[in-house]
Amino acid sequence: MLKINVGIIGFGTVGAGTFEVLTTNRKLIRDRIGAEVVVKRIADLDIESDRGIPVRPAREILTMDAMDLIDDPEIDLVVELVGGLDRAREFILRAMEKGKHVVTANKALLAEHGALLYRSAREHGVGLAFEASVGGGIPIIGALKNGLSGNRIQTCVGILNGTSNYILTKMTQEGLPFDRAVDQAVHLGFAEDPPTLDVDGTDAAHKLAIIISIAFGSPVSFNRIYREGIVAVTPDDIRYADEFGYRVKLLAIAKDLGDKIEARVHSAMISRDHILANVNEAFNAIYIEGDFVGPNLYYGLGAGRRPTGSAVVSDIIGLAREIKAGARELTPPLGHALPREEGIEIQAIEDLITPYYFRFSAVDTPGVLSRIAGILSEHRISISSVIQKGRKSEGPVSIVMLTHEARESAAQKAISAIDKLDVVTDKTVVIRVEGNSL
Amino acid sequence: MLKINVGIIGFGTVGAGTFEVLTTNRKLIRDRIGAEVVVKRIADLDIESDRGIPVRPAREILTMDAMDLIDDPEIDLVVELVGGLDRAREFILRAMEKGKHVVTANKALLAEHGALLYRSAREHGVGLAFEASVGGGIPIIGALKNGLSGNRIQTCVGILNGTSNYILTKMTQEGLPFDRAVDQAVHLGFAEDPPTLDVDGTDAAHKLAIIISIAFGSPVSFNRIYREGIVAVTPDDIRYADEFGYRVKLLAIAKDLGDKIEARVHSAMISRDHILANVNEAFNAIYIEGDFVGPNLYYGLGAGRRPTGSAVVSDIIGLAREIKAGARELTPPLGHALPREEGIEIQAIEDLITPYYFRFSAVDTPGVLSRIAGILSEHRISISSVIQKGRKSEGPVSIVMLTHEARESAAQKAISAIDKLDVVTDKTVVIRVEGNSL
Repeated sequence: MLKINVGIIGFGTVGAGTFEVLTTNRKLIRDRIGAEVVVKRIADLDIESDRGIPVRPAREILTMDAMDLIDDPEIDLVVELVGGLDRAREFILRAMEKGKHVVTANKALLAEHGALLYRSAREHGVGLAFEASVGGGIPIIGALKNGLSGNRIQTCVGILNGTSNYILTKMTQEGLPFDRAVDQAVHLGFAEDPPTLDVDGTDAAHKLAIIISIAFGSPVSFNRIYREGIVAVTPDDIRYADEFGYRVKLLAIAKDLGDKIEARVHSAMISRDHILANVNEAFNAIYIEGDFVGPNLYYGLGAGRRPTGSAVVSDIIGLAREIKAGARELTPPLGHALPREEGIEIQAIEDLITPYYFRFSAVDTPGVLSRIAGILSEHRISISSVIQKGRKSEGPVSIVMLTHEARESAAQKAISAIDKLDVVTDKTVVIRVEGNSL
Repeated sequence: MLKINVGIIGFGTVGAGTFEVLTTNRKLIRDRIGAEVVVKRIADLDIESDRGIPVRPAREILTMDAMDLIDDPEIDLVVELVGGLDRAREFILRAMEKGKHVVTANKALLAEHGALLYRSAREHGVGLAFEASVGGGIPIIGALKNGLSGNRIQTCVGILNGTSNYILTKMTQEGLPFDRAVDQAVHLGFAEDPPTLDVDGTDAAHKLAIIISIAFGSPVSFNRIYREGIVAVTPDDIRYADEFGYRVKLLAIAKDLGDKIEARVHSAMISRDHILANVNEAFNAIYIEGDFVGPNLYYGLGAGRRPTGSAVVSDIIGLAREIKAGARELTPPLGHALPREEGIEIQAIEDLITPYYFRFSAVDTPGVLSRIAGILSEHRISISSVIQKGRKSEGPVSIVMLTHEARESAAQKAISAIDKLDVVTDKTVVIRVEGNSL
């Protein structure tokens, strides 16, 4: 039987999960492919410690030098799981130069240097697969590349960061403030300490960049993706959202506008009835609309050793099947044989048109609402509903509004003017509403 | 550029949808594959009527004779969309004999004669793909064959029949009785008139058979799948379910028990908090648990010209990519290169162990509950909660119970004994609870 020799670089959480899947389900995987997947070499700087998995690699396949396996002519496929940018990129490029297929889970690398890697895979006629880079165990890359391949993708809305979703879930269900929810997430192992790239939207934006590149057939400039995190969300805003029938989620949004696309990551309100609103805890989900398939949702665990290992192994199996079939050319990394020639232009956030939630903090004197509403009206922002609570004490009060669709630039100017009013006591909270489009 | 010539047999709803996708997104599909998909011939007994699609095939590619395209040596790939069993099977087998790849949406044929077709595809070295046979536009076949391919599949629970789900949604949200909800579904075009195979569980069982064959790597005897429909569900049961925190859904369930599997379709109660409970209207969803990936959910429109056309075209693109890559062998229909040698044994329904919902109709006299509970206890069925409403009038009352896990054979015997009691006025309603396992 054909053997596919695999080398794994990076034996951390995901590396261990990958090895565990390949070992535990060895026979089943062999039967599915019709070929044997052999882990011939594992490289890691730490080859001593136990990874907490029930299976352990034989001592002799471990090495501290990644080049040992990249340069090994018997290895067909290299799995890059070291993370980070520079070293990982060098490993992948060198492996491709040596004619090896590559599987990676490195979302930051793909988001920031994807174009280079996709080109290199093409030039060397090798496969490059990265199902594990987005949504952990959810096979969303496969769905976009294959299952939805007849569709023009119109909308992608994802809950792509499990840590943020866990934090927002705790804030929603238990009324915890942000800092306390973060502490809990760190304590339970759902978050790094501090979880900066999770809560500031960077991680979700990396994943969104990868989704966009597949959905629209071209790498995208990562820095053009607007991003904001969840740090500014308070339990008060979550409660007001609930009164309006919404939940607050960190959403990663891409929409086809024809000549350009929207691409943005920020906390947003979505209707409580929308299926994404009920994705809680550390789960991820991606909602896709295609021109023929209509609405589709994919849901599962977005991180963790086992789900991510499952995704890495699905890529290994996919490439192994192509190798076994004697394919002369492999499915291109983005699923587009003829890549889009023009790049993808991302609309500036100032041109976004969406409904908004505003929470104003103001002194409780007559005429305040009228002054705020007046400024909004000057900027052609029309209000769809208002909540003004009776005051509890002497302090400032909250005035909460939902608007109809308005332009971001107008919203920013209006809020900037309102925040300068003498009756306004604190910076206005602005949360976009993902409404009409879902 | 390479051309892949396609022949479509059957130009009804799905055939028209397939043609519409291929025509509307021609350029995008070409760029994704790197080859041109050309619809060279369409066969249908009716080549006159307008299909209500915005694009129309050129007159000269239409034929009334399917053999015209099956025997055409220039056609690479045949799409079978005539439905039914005998004719469709002959078309597919003959096309394969002629060395053509086949795409079909024919769930009844695959469920009942899949083994024959899979063998024939293997013998003739052609591809056979059927994403559209389950879940309409949801790429669930692809997820099982590819995205989850590293996993032992443990559990599949699907809402696979949009008509039943629509009917149950209306019964739940508007309190309509079954017959009225059916009328509404027929009136709005969500159901055939009468929708027998939809509401009796046959359609969902066909789809479950296909899911099982891919998840477990072997065709299954369709007749061994237990099936019950939704005809016996009443608005009363839906209301009681709600009081217990459940929703009533027509579920198609498969579970790996190690030496055998559970395979059953019936109306069932699931927790209101479960993500499947919130799949409403004509939507479908499939919940999958794999040993590494954990829980996964796939959601979308389960029927209709456009979503089903999307799925058929994804199969055409997948096969076209394999042809273009020069694959010597195509991905086997079930995704298993070495098929499971032993067949799949299905557990008899009598051996099922699950919690139950019982609704007893009885005269309102003292001691009734004690007699019913006594019989349940004799059969070692223990009660977890009871609702007994005060009577509204002179008539019989409902006594509603949830049980702990019990064996189906015991439940059947107990209910049969209870239904013979002189105080019991009507046949007891039994609904299985899909509880602990989700």
